[in-house]
Amino acid sequence: MTDYAVDFQPIGRKGECRADETILACARRLGVDISSVCGGRGTCNSCRIRITSGALSEPTDIETGAFTRQELDNCWRLACQTSPTSDCQVEIPLESMTASQRVYIEELEIAIAPDPAVKAYHIQLTTPSLSDQRGDTDRVLAGLNEQHGVACRKIDINVLRALSPRLRNWNWECQTSVRHDEVVALGPWPSRQLGLAVDLGTTTIAGYLIDLNDGQTLAYTGAVNPQVNYGEDIISRIDYAIKSSDGEIKLHELAVNKLNEMVTNLCAKAGTSIEEIVEATVVCNTAMHHILLNLPVKQLVLTPFSATANLSLDVKAHELGLRIAQGAYIHFPPNISGFVGSDHVSMLLASNHGLTDGPVVALDIGTNTEISLLVGDEITTTSCASGPAFEGGHIKHGIRAVEGAIERLRITEDGVNYQTINKARPIGICGSGVLDALAQLYLAKIIDGGGRLAKGNPRVRVIENRAEFVLVDGEGEDRKSSIVITQKDVRELQLAKAAIRSSIQLLLEATGFVDEDISEVIIAGSFGSYIDVSSAITVGLLPALPLDRFHQVGNAAGMGAKLALVSLAKRKEAEGIASRTHYIELANASAFKQTFIETSHIGRYRIKQGKREAVT
Amino acid sequence: MTDYAVDFQPIGRKGECRADETILACARRLGVDISSVCGGRGTCNSCRIRITSGALSEPTDIETGAFTRQELDNCWRLACQTSPTSDCQVEIPLESMTASQRVYIEELEIAIAPDPAVKAYHIQLTTPSLSDQRGDTDRVLAGLNEQHGVACRKIDINVLRALSPRLRNWNWECQTSVRHDEVVALGPWPSRQLGLAVDLGTTTIAGYLIDLNDGQTLAYTGAVNPQVNYGEDIISRIDYAIKSSDGEIKLHELAVNKLNEMVTNLCAKAGTSIEEIVEATVVCNTAMHHILLNLPVKQLVLTPFSATANLSLDVKAHELGLRIAQGAYIHFPPNISGFVGSDHVSMLLASNHGLTDGPVVALDIGTNTEISLLVGDEITTTSCASGPAFEGGHIKHGIRAVEGAIERLRITEDGVNYQTINKARPIGICGSGVLDALAQLYLAKIIDGGGRLAKGNPRVRVIENRAEFVLVDGEGEDRKSSIVITQKDVRELQLAKAAIRSSIQLLLEATGFVDEDISEVIIAGSFGSYIDVSSAITVGLLPALPLDRFHQVGNAAGMGAKLALVSLAKRKEAEGIASRTHYIELANASAFKQTFIETSHIGRYRIKQGKREAVT
Repeated sequence: MTDYAVDFQPIGRKGECRADETILACARRLGVDISSVCGGRGTCNSCRIRITSGALSEPTDIETGAFTRQELDNCWRLACQTSPTSDCQVEIPLESMTASQRVYIEELEIAIAPDPAVKAYHIQLTTPSLSDQRGDTDRVLAGLNEQHGVACRKIDINVLRALSPRLRNWNWECQTSVRHDEVVALGPWPSRQLGLAVDLGTTTIAGYLIDLNDGQTLAYTGAVNPQVNYGEDIISRIDYAIKSSDGEIKLHELAVNKLNEMVTNLCAKAGTSIEEIVEATVVCNTAMHHILLNLPVKQLVLTPFSATANLSLDVKAHELGLRIAQGAYIHFPPNISGFVGSDHVSMLLASNHGLTDGPVVALDIGTNTEISLLVGDEITTTSCASGPAFEGGHIKHGIRAVEGAIERLRITEDGVNYQTINKARPIGICGSGVLDALAQLYLAKIIDGGGRLAKGNPRVRVIENRAEFVLVDGEGEDRKSSIVITQKDVRELQLAKAAIRSSIQLLLEATGFVDEDISEVIIAGSFGSYIDVSSAITVGLLPALPLDRFHQVGNAAGMGAKLALVSLAKRKEAEGIASRTHYIELANASAFKQTFIETSHIGRYRIKQGKREAVT
Repeated sequence: MTDYAVDFQPIGRKGECRADETILACARRLGVDISSVCGGRGTCNSCRIRITSGALSEPTDIETGAFTRQELDNCWRLACQTSPTSDCQVEIPLESMTASQRVYIEELEIAIAPDPAVKAYHIQLTTPSLSDQRGDTDRVLAGLNEQHGVACRKIDINVLRALSPRLRNWNWECQTSVRHDEVVALGPWPSRQLGLAVDLGTTTIAGYLIDLNDGQTLAYTGAVNPQVNYGEDIISRIDYAIKSSDGEIKLHELAVNKLNEMVTNLCAKAGTSIEEIVEATVVCNTAMHHILLNLPVKQLVLTPFSATANLSLDVKAHELGLRIAQGAYIHFPPNISGFVGSDHVSMLLASNHGLTDGPVVALDIGTNTEISLLVGDEITTTSCASGPAFEGGHIKHGIRAVEGAIERLRITEDGVNYQTINKARPIGICGSGVLDALAQLYLAKIIDGGGRLAKGNPRVRVIENRAEFVLVDGEGEDRKSSIVITQKDVRELQLAKAAIRSSIQLLLEATGFVDEDISEVIIAGSFGSYIDVSSAITVGLLPALPLDRFHQVGNAAGMGAKLALVSLAKRKEAEGIASRTHYIELANASAFKQTFIETSHIGRYRIKQGKREAVT
């Protein structure tokens, strides 16, 4: 039997696949986790892959049923149905990855040549003597000029404070880190030049340690934003900041302490010290931005919701209490408005939009969802409060995407099939699972378009007059280990998805487009990237467009933060994105309420002149 | 009787003088304090003045005895001997002023057109609305650009933090203070643009509040450096900083707290708030510079005595704990070496050297004395530890120049005549009085050239085997209110003056000049400016040159600080001075010890080939 070479991307795992083996089986053998709720029986369609080179067996009936003609032409296949007939390269879209696999994606390398704000220079100085009593700093700056032609006049005060004993310890040989015209760090020769990129989300924080010279990601770490204890969404957190006398300082300190903890963690992973981190970039929404910078947040929730600063900022890390190299700066890319922050700019920066002419919708689904509609160079943006449901919040058995969370789910005649993170015993259901559940309940006609649970179904039980659908039956008599979707959960999800879909709708209306015009939908963020797009279409969260037009780009905000960290050109590009973005306030749109009601319905539809029209 | 108009400079007091009235009597009537130990009897020569325009009575015999022909030609006169014969302008040199008068000098206006680092702009902004949700800072920077053509991209983080509520309070009209490309302060419109100039001495601190727009001094304040409790001279203070675990931080905090106190004081005097002080300049010796900046001082006392930084620095005031406008900078002009600081550069900046071709000696006498010899553009500098004797330290009844201090003193056949500050009951003797005492004791032959007190003199008493000369006899039996000069005091003064004179000598030798070549001696500093130059020559502290060649310029370091505060051109000039100065380390000079011994002798002399030669 012939063996073919298979290359799984973007993970970068390579191996041999026998001609009689499915891609799914091969992937499992190589330790590449591809989502598969039905266990390879071809009933769940969750192992969708795309072949980017090479030849495969002819599509099976199951595959021709699962994909449109166009999708098959574009090489979309099911991993459980397909075998190679040549060497090939397989692209696993994010939605087909299991949670445990996704962490690799966070460490994806950036694809540009670094051009960082901070540059390193090695200098060897002469020792002071009675006949050469120049000051130590004068000596360093002269060395930079004479040995590298770098005319630098400034030195950070904290670098200055440590400079004299250090130069003596290092025998007058050192590495200077220069940012524009200022020395921001001084290390022994040789030292690494590292950067910290942070995506500071309302719920989760992602941190990346990057080598500024080659752009490589040396370490990644994620954490829950500890501020969640003071409000799950931004509005309640701002409320806390305003009403409690030291509320904002408290929130600021929580974030900074967590960032410092993450830095320690990253340094341990990469075997480095904080002294080698000579620059940082933080992207976040405008409220988190203001809290981290200790800017007042009150005005963010008062009409007209204007920020203290939208423009990009460069602030000394030590001013915020972030412990990296003594003179290092944190670069904050620009915000767009009081409710659309640098994380959205960063997401747009990282996404390869502009590849298509038609309108592109780019959205980052979170507790607050920011959505842009791009036509050529024009960007129109809005934001909506979509709530924490898609992150597992306000859902009875909702949890974050941790081990044991149900991440994929299918309802068949046999019952409920599900897949948990790390294949662990189920302990709850995370965002992508919740969305699947809503879609599957609708397809199985257990809920109707209005979202009402059919009480006649054997898996629907009523407790104290409240209906709930049992996903996982509790062991024995103990109801506590059951996992259910309640009527209230369904309502919560309807509100969340209506907020997002109606915002997309209003952006289309504001720019004169309809659903079908959309050439591409870019979905970013931890939730949006791993949902089953079919489920999202089924429930009406996203417009019913061919699957081909959807691109799930992972934590694009984090990738944008990396890009802005290593490249001055990318910082400039981010300025450009922010400056040409036109923000629309939903509160201003008179049609919003009506559209919201229409889009709270479940099903595949478009909105035309304020009315819902079913689409196939 | 005719009255003539007399204009007293630099005080600026004008009035009428009768033709039969002496200038001294007229001055007293007008409240202008001119020094006069003998009360106008023409025996003390302490009321020397210079007539800069107008005509006067012919010189009396007393005056022809007191001045050389050249000095009389140059219009030097004694105020007690002279009457006007026309309207005239009278210049009172600093040495002829009483201490109480000198405070006016501190408020002297600078004579240049201001060109400050910080410039103020009025802007009127439009109010944010749902259709114009620009960030508040974006709005301010756009306003600066649109209304003033100022392209400014940065804003201080602390200004940023307060910006949003302030703009709303001020109804979107404000004054922005811009430094290069950064907004450093924001005030209501109109606000004043003030600057703080500080001369931070080892013993005393002088602070000036200046209007940056017109260069006017709005208020002046002086204070004792509270660090004196941790060592009177720089060496012992550095010693404390090194040996005590938190010594340097303690010294730093003492200085900063005192500066903050002075700022409060200045603001109260001028009726302003710290928010209006948008820039500061601090000049000081290198050790004080390092302590204020929290730079390590240890290396300053270890060979080769190199500073952490000689180059000029611009540091955020809040980084040092100085409370002025939130984003304001402190400019530190350059130091020359570990022992010659920016105060000396500042003194050279303020002094009009370069008016004569020949070598100019410029010195600032203090606990540490810095001396420069200038020939054209060439500057050669050294420094010496002259101790606190000339500031009243280590002298039995020595005190600082406070009310009741003997500031002028003459020994005649009648006994000891003296003048105290504010004409108060004598409580001690300050630097200029101590120097007068030494000169007068020598002239009266009560001490010899070796400094030994003649025990036969009726005013010399011996207590517990220690000789002392009684300047003021104690009332009744109470010895405690006597004021004496002890044998030990004389020795202390000999060491102090030998240090200074031998340094001048070595600078001359290093540059190939002798005493007579010196075309000008510029004497700066609180002590040096108010000494009787004749006394300084009599004891051999200064070379025996015609009085005309000496110029006492007051707190020139403070004036230099003012100049650097209001003028970018002057900052550049200060850089030039520092960069073309050649520092000579006395410890390197082999002849120093011998010269020191020679110059500890009292009398008028020159040193030739290592030997003392009396001069007339």
